[in-house]
Amino acid sequence: MKDLTEKKIEQSIEDRKRTYRTFFDNVKTYKPFLELEEKTFKDGVLNRRTKELMALSISIVTKCEPCMEWHLDQAIQNGATDEEIFETIDVSIEMGGGQAGAYARFVVKALDYFRNKNESR
Amino acid sequence: MKDLTEKKIEQSIEDRKRTYRTFFDNVKTYKPFLELEEKTFKDGVLNRRTKELMALSISIVTKCEPCMEWHLDQAIQNGATDEEIFETIDVSIEMGGGQAGAYARFVVKALDYFRNKNESR
Amino acid sequence: MKDLTEKKIEQSIEDRKRTYRTFFDNVKTYKPFLELEEKTFKDGVLNRRTKELMALSISIVTKCEPCMEWHLDQAIQNGATDEEIFETIDVSIEMGGGQAGAYARFVVKALDYFRNKNESR
Amino acid sequence: MKDLTEKKIEQSIEDRKRTYRTFFDNVKTYKPFLELEEKTFKDGVLNRRTKELMALSISIVTKCEPCMEWHLDQAIQNGATDEEIFETIDVSIEMGGGQAGAYARFVVKALDYFRNKNESR
Amino acid sequence: MKDLTEKKIEQSIEDRKRTYRTFFDNVKTYKPFLELEEKTFKDGVLNRRTKELMALSISIVTKCEPCMEWHLDQAIQNGATDEEIFETIDVSIEMGGGQAGAYARFVVKALDYFRNKNESR
Amino acid sequence: MKDLTEKKIEQSIEDRKRTYRTFFDNVKTYKPFLELEEKTFKDGVLNRRTKELMALSISIVTKCEPCMEWHLDQAIQNGATDEEIFETIDVSIEMGGGQAGAYARFVVKALDYFRNKNESR
Repeated sequence: MKDLTEKKIEQSIEDRKRTYRTFFDNVKTYKPFLELEEKTFKDGVLNRRTKELMALSISIVTKCEPCMEWHLDQAIQNGATDEEIFETIDVSIEMGGGQAGAYARFVVKALDYFRNKNESR
Repeated sequence: MKDLTEKKIEQSIEDRKRTYRTFFDNVKTYKPFLELEEKTFKDGVLNRRTKELMALSISIVTKCEPCMEWHLDQAIQNGATDEEIFETIDVSIEMGGGQAGAYARFVVKALDYFRNKNESR
Repeated sequence: MKDLTEKKIEQSIEDRKRTYRTFFDNVKTYKPFLELEEKTFKDGVLNRRTKELMALSISIVTKCEPCMEWHLDQAIQNGATDEEIFETIDVSIEMGGGQAGAYARFVVKALDYFRNKNESR
Repeated sequence: MKDLTEKKIEQSIEDRKRTYRTFFDNVKTYKPFLELEEKTFKDGVLNRRTKELMALSISIVTKCEPCMEWHLDQAIQNGATDEEIFETIDVSIEMGGGQAGAYARFVVKALDYFRNKNESR
Repeated sequence: MKDLTEKKIEQSIEDRKRTYRTFFDNVKTYKPFLELEEKTFKDGVLNRRTKELMALSISIVTKCEPCMEWHLDQAIQNGATDEEIFETIDVSIEMGGGQAGAYARFVVKALDYFRNKNESR
Repeated sequence: MKDLTEKKIEQSIEDRKRTYRTFFDNVKTYKPFLELEEKTFKDGVLNRRTKELMALSISIVTKCEPCMEWHLDQAIQNGATDEEIFETIDVSIEMGGGQAGAYARFVVKALDYFRNKNESR
């Protein structure tokens, strides 16, 4: 039987894709939000990788699993190393305590998931 | 394989039913809470539909999946249209940003689920 | 001595004005956010008043005092009655319990503040 | 000049009293909430002191200052010792990290405030 | 088909074990966190059982499912009775309202799960 | 009359100092927490400045004013530029929406406060 945490990761990816069209056609805030998102994460005085790790740290402390899935993947695709991700977890635990530690497990498992997926490409 | 998000929706419905008796017999706050709930959602100067949409908006921003499942279903049963639900998502995204956007996917999928269930009745 | 809660309300209004220029000139997300905000709150199938009350309910449950100050004022300026605001507090308490009840005091005091300000205009 | 944290404590006490009548007369959920509150905190298999400390720990982690003020005072009036309050802070920091540590300062100052007030009675 | 809530409970237990080594070897905050955790939960003026119930109440209000799983199990292993757990749910609902009520279902189901597991030992 | 937001900043600084001894002598988690904090923020593959900005972004989204005060000051003392702080606000608004925008005003005012204090040294 497949691991439930892996299923959650894959479902998060699938839901994002499957609901995209509905959001785009019906949710009025979606277009300005996409613009806001783009302006946020493009390289500035902080590069995109740093910003994605920052977003990942927020996602851990606020217990947002689909956010962790997305920003971890984006961080990796923009060159984040395992060490950088572990230090992001450090900041999250310092700020959010045991709750952040519990949600950081999701990140550790998602990290394995994305590293494996990239290797098998 | 069944969609995990759909399973979560169905599990939320089932858990509410399956734990009801335990709450009723053991949790002292449950009876006054049911009264509080009833007073909250009955038609007043705001009608029930509006109040359920309000509760839905809170549920999205606070990332409460079983709450989203319940208040969406109640909103629909009290006549909420798709357009009203999408505008509720707008308010949630304005207040809660990308995190709210990520949890609104659950609402979009639950909306499909409840609309389909009602059609097949 | 002036009431601290009233001072917080006035400081919230003042800080919004005093930081506006800094946000506008320096924070890249600010312009798309203003567009997102405008799209959110303009009359749709839900009118602006309803949406402002919805935002107020979210603000109470998430304990956001400057948000309460702003969305209460906007709700009042768009015709919200005291009864509608009290029913918004009902939904907030149902969803958020005693914590929401504690923050709803801020709303009750801000309601007095804004009603008095409008009378003396 | 008076300490701002002390002013917040006193304002929290005053706002609770000053808004009570408004809640009682206008907020429909208020009466069932008072019943719910009473059922929650009366001595059971857990005594009231333990329950108030539990509520205090929740208040610290959720950053609810008026809740901290109230449940600390109630805990003290029900016999809580300084040592018990410090161990409540321990649990809060374990669960909520540095954020809980920062809000626990409010508890430490409120503890001084209430101990002094009781001595001078 | 297995109950999804039970699967979540088992996955939470498994993820804790499976990620332990990764945390221990890579996350710098992990060792001081383990020390902090140990100091928090050992018997003091409050005994461990009380502290675990306190942590459980925080977990319900903050909607932390892996935290609920862990602290419920620890509370039970330290002698917590069903009545004590139900009164912990009371405090959580008083503080956190309907959202806490919805997450308390997870606790009720996990309670069944752990009681059954212990019986069959 | 002094600005209330400035008073909050100064009170946050003062409360940290004034409660330090009480925490150190009475709160068992405090020493391992200080060690955890030190391990978190020392230069690693991410430098301290980046980690402080990360902690600042978390503080904005979780509405933790004393955390914002501290991590902003630490970021500045470790060389953070205004541009970096504004991009940190961007990430916070993307993740946390209008609520983050409202709390970012505190950061903007605290930025002025700390820059002025440093100039007058």
